[in-house]
Amino acid sequence: MRRAVTLAARGIGSTSPNPVVGCVILDASGEVAGEGWHQRAGGPHAEVHALRAAGDAARGGTALVTLEPCNHTGRTGPCAQALIDAGIARVVYAVADPNPDATGGAQTLRAAGISVEQGLLEAEAAEGNAAWLTSVRLGRPHVTWKYAATLDGRIAAADGTSRWITSAESRADVHRLRAECDAVVVGSGTQRADDPHLAARGIEGAVQPLRVVVDTNGTAVTPGARVVDDAAPTLIAVADDATPAYEGESDGDGVETVRLPRAAEGGLDIPTLLAVLHARGVRSVLLEGGATLAGAFVAAGAVDRVIGYLAPVLLGAGPAALAGGGITTITEALRLDVSETVRLGPDLRVTATLVTKEH
Amino acid sequence: MRRAVTLAARGIGSTSPNPVVGCVILDASGEVAGEGWHQRAGGPHAEVHALRAAGDAARGGTALVTLEPCNHTGRTGPCAQALIDAGIARVVYAVADPNPDATGGAQTLRAAGISVEQGLLEAEAAEGNAAWLTSVRLGRPHVTWKYAATLDGRIAAADGTSRWITSAESRADVHRLRAECDAVVVGSGTQRADDPHLAARGIEGAVQPLRVVVDTNGTAVTPGARVVDDAAPTLIAVADDATPAYEGESDGDGVETVRLPRAAEGGLDIPTLLAVLHARGVRSVLLEGGATLAGAFVAAGAVDRVIGYLAPVLLGAGPAALAGGGITTITEALRLDVSETVRLGPDLRVTATLVTKEH
Ligand SMILES: NC(=O)c1ccc[n+]([C@@H]2O[C@H](COP(=O)([O-])OP(=O)(O)OC[C@H]3O[C@@H](n4cnc5c(N)ncnc54)[C@H](OP(=O)(O)O)[C@@H]3O)[C@@H](O)[C@H]2O)c1
Ligand SMILES: NC(=O)c1ccc[n+]([C@@H]2O[C@H](COP(=O)([O-])OP(=O)(O)OC[C@H]3O[C@@H](n4cnc5c(N)ncnc54)[C@H](OP(=O)(O)O)[C@@H]3O)[C@@H](O)[C@H]2O)c1
Repeated sequence: MRRAVTLAARGIGSTSPNPVVGCVILDASGEVAGEGWHQRAGGPHAEVHALRAAGDAARGGTALVTLEPCNHTGRTGPCAQALIDAGIARVVYAVADPNPDATGGAQTLRAAGISVEQGLLEAEAAEGNAAWLTSVRLGRPHVTWKYAATLDGRIAAADGTSRWITSAESRADVHRLRAECDAVVVGSGTQRADDPHLAARGIEGAVQPLRVVVDTNGTAVTPGARVVDDAAPTLIAVADDATPAYEGESDGDGVETVRLPRAAEGGLDIPTLLAVLHARGVRSVLLEGGATLAGAFVAAGAVDRVIGYLAPVLLGAGPAALAGGGITTITEALRLDVSETVRLGPDLRVTATLVTKEH
Repeated sequence: MRRAVTLAARGIGSTSPNPVVGCVILDASGEVAGEGWHQRAGGPHAEVHALRAAGDAARGGTALVTLEPCNHTGRTGPCAQALIDAGIARVVYAVADPNPDATGGAQTLRAAGISVEQGLLEAEAAEGNAAWLTSVRLGRPHVTWKYAATLDGRIAAADGTSRWITSAESRADVHRLRAECDAVVVGSGTQRADDPHLAARGIEGAVQPLRVVVDTNGTAVTPGARVVDDAAPTLIAVADDATPAYEGESDGDGVETVRLPRAAEGGLDIPTLLAVLHARGVRSVLLEGGATLAGAFVAAGAVDRVIGYLAPVLLGAGPAALAGGGITTITEALRLDVSETVRLGPDLRVTATLVTKEH
């Protein structure tokens, strides 16, 4: 199963809106007969790849799968049926499928007389599918807020200068994050201050994320902005009543404009933004800031994971990484679990996950 | 030598104003014949302990010492002479003694016909003696600034509440830090807000640090303050012209008042404070804040090491860990090296060291 989890991870960034899945087929004597993983949305599922590789050796064998085999006929046939047809005797899967359309795979397998077990390496497998599982559970994309700051929590010096707080290694790592997610989101403040590009550069075979600018009045994204080049698709979110300075063309310049309701507190309504992205197949969002928009996501309860790139630098003054968010007293603080810390050149990358109540 | 470095570390917190030193004596055949470490100021040096343990076996043997054997007669005789007298044939030491009073040990040994080598595991041994080496080099104590903050760099929520940002594990770790240093320093703001105790609690055999409150006008430390109890000695630093609310008695209530010049920018002069502490034998200072006093230490170039206890919590508002410090643009930022990251319960402890120019 550990091998299946590793195989599944190869699909991160390219299977959306599907989950990542890995599968290992053992023959009747327990030897590895075939391996597979879900490579891209619309392509064959992991089980189908693995069964093809195993061929006749699958008969009487065991399938180890990271996710409950699907039961529905989507763009590919149901995997449960494929496993039955191949003569598999035993199926072990890590995580149950919470998707109402796909669920029931285990039942179908059992009804066909196959021995079915669930739960092996469940936590590891679930972690690899965090984005997809969150999006199924909550009906909105999984959101990772990423920031780069000094040890004392500043994202720039008092005079606004910030080039470069974090190292080349950290900046390269951000491109990997972009390639792994379906959409990258920034606010109009960051758009104005940085004219960011937001595409994943320097990552071989990267599937480019959808670049999203939350630009209420449509004044931050102007013709010539780097974000409207053809490196990746772009979505400009503006208010219902805005007259955007750059109007995306639906005929295929790769830039679209979407109109959203304004929030009572100002800006655009974050839950609606996330619903719109979800409807477009976005399962994972990388929120790249700035502090104001990140605060609005926190206030909306829409941050699932935080990745902080901390530079061993002290500034003592300058803007903070997170502003607003509506927390006024310590008992309301957003508490997370540190899931990983990694050294990146001189910097530290800290990953922390929201403590979910369902677990 | 690795064993000698380990032995030396046992003295951390109790040898000041002396360095920590470890020594292993090998007999003529290369077997370990004796071990020792400098246990407390005024007690025998590491070499003397190790030679006593080795007895006659030292003759013709090798001494492995973490620091160049001393040459001067302080409270104990010079170690170089003790090694000569014991008939040691070879001395290997890690770090040369930068102390002008003690130096020359290697020369004395060589003059007596002993083979002498320097540099083995130098970096490791120097790290254990960082405080002492810094204080010899700069003529002031080594300063560690310690703070506890959220991932977004806040030390309290917007309404000032901060109990408890970090975990019980982190708070226990701070007591260990206090026991390892010679003095703990806070500003009058922290004194007023927290009425801190500042002693090392729950550490067996701890040598209590000197508790120092930087209280310019002598108005923050009042009778009944926890810091003036008898758990540890206390020093209240006030301005030359202040009339302190609590006047320490030199006849032995354990609380002393020291008068210092005011700084042009307000508050007390930090370099003078450090010089006074150094003159009293303080080699390592743990600066426990708050943000304002820490900023003044940064501005004075008097922070050698930073230990941040980072809680995986987001606040989005509230006071920052470091304020002031005189840095206005990114090129002036204080750059450090991350030397260690450790998980403490839910928190992360990040240790970063100033990049010194001498190395
Ligand atoms: N170090 C880092 O990790 C990092 C990352 C990104 C940015 N930055 C820096 O952060 C600075 C920009 O940050 P910022 O805070 O000024 O801008 P921001 O967060 O990028 O954008 C904030 C703007 O987004 C718009 N917005 C739309 N809907 C919103 C909502 N629901 N809630 C809040 N805002 C909403 C608002 O303007 P309108 O309503 O007028 O559109 C708001 O002013 C720049 O200096 C940039 O360099 C640093
Ligand atoms: N999370 C943490 O790690 C942590 C640690 C400590 C404190 N805190 C919090 O920090 C807050 C207090 O911080 P604070 O910044 O207000 O106070 P502070 O840094 O403890 O004390 C500042 C005061 O020290 C005096 N001072 C003396 N010499 C100085 C100099 N050369 N430069 C600057 N100040 C000098 C000044 O007052 P006078 O000149 O009038 O004496 C100054 O206002 C409290 O809320 C406390 O709970 C948090």
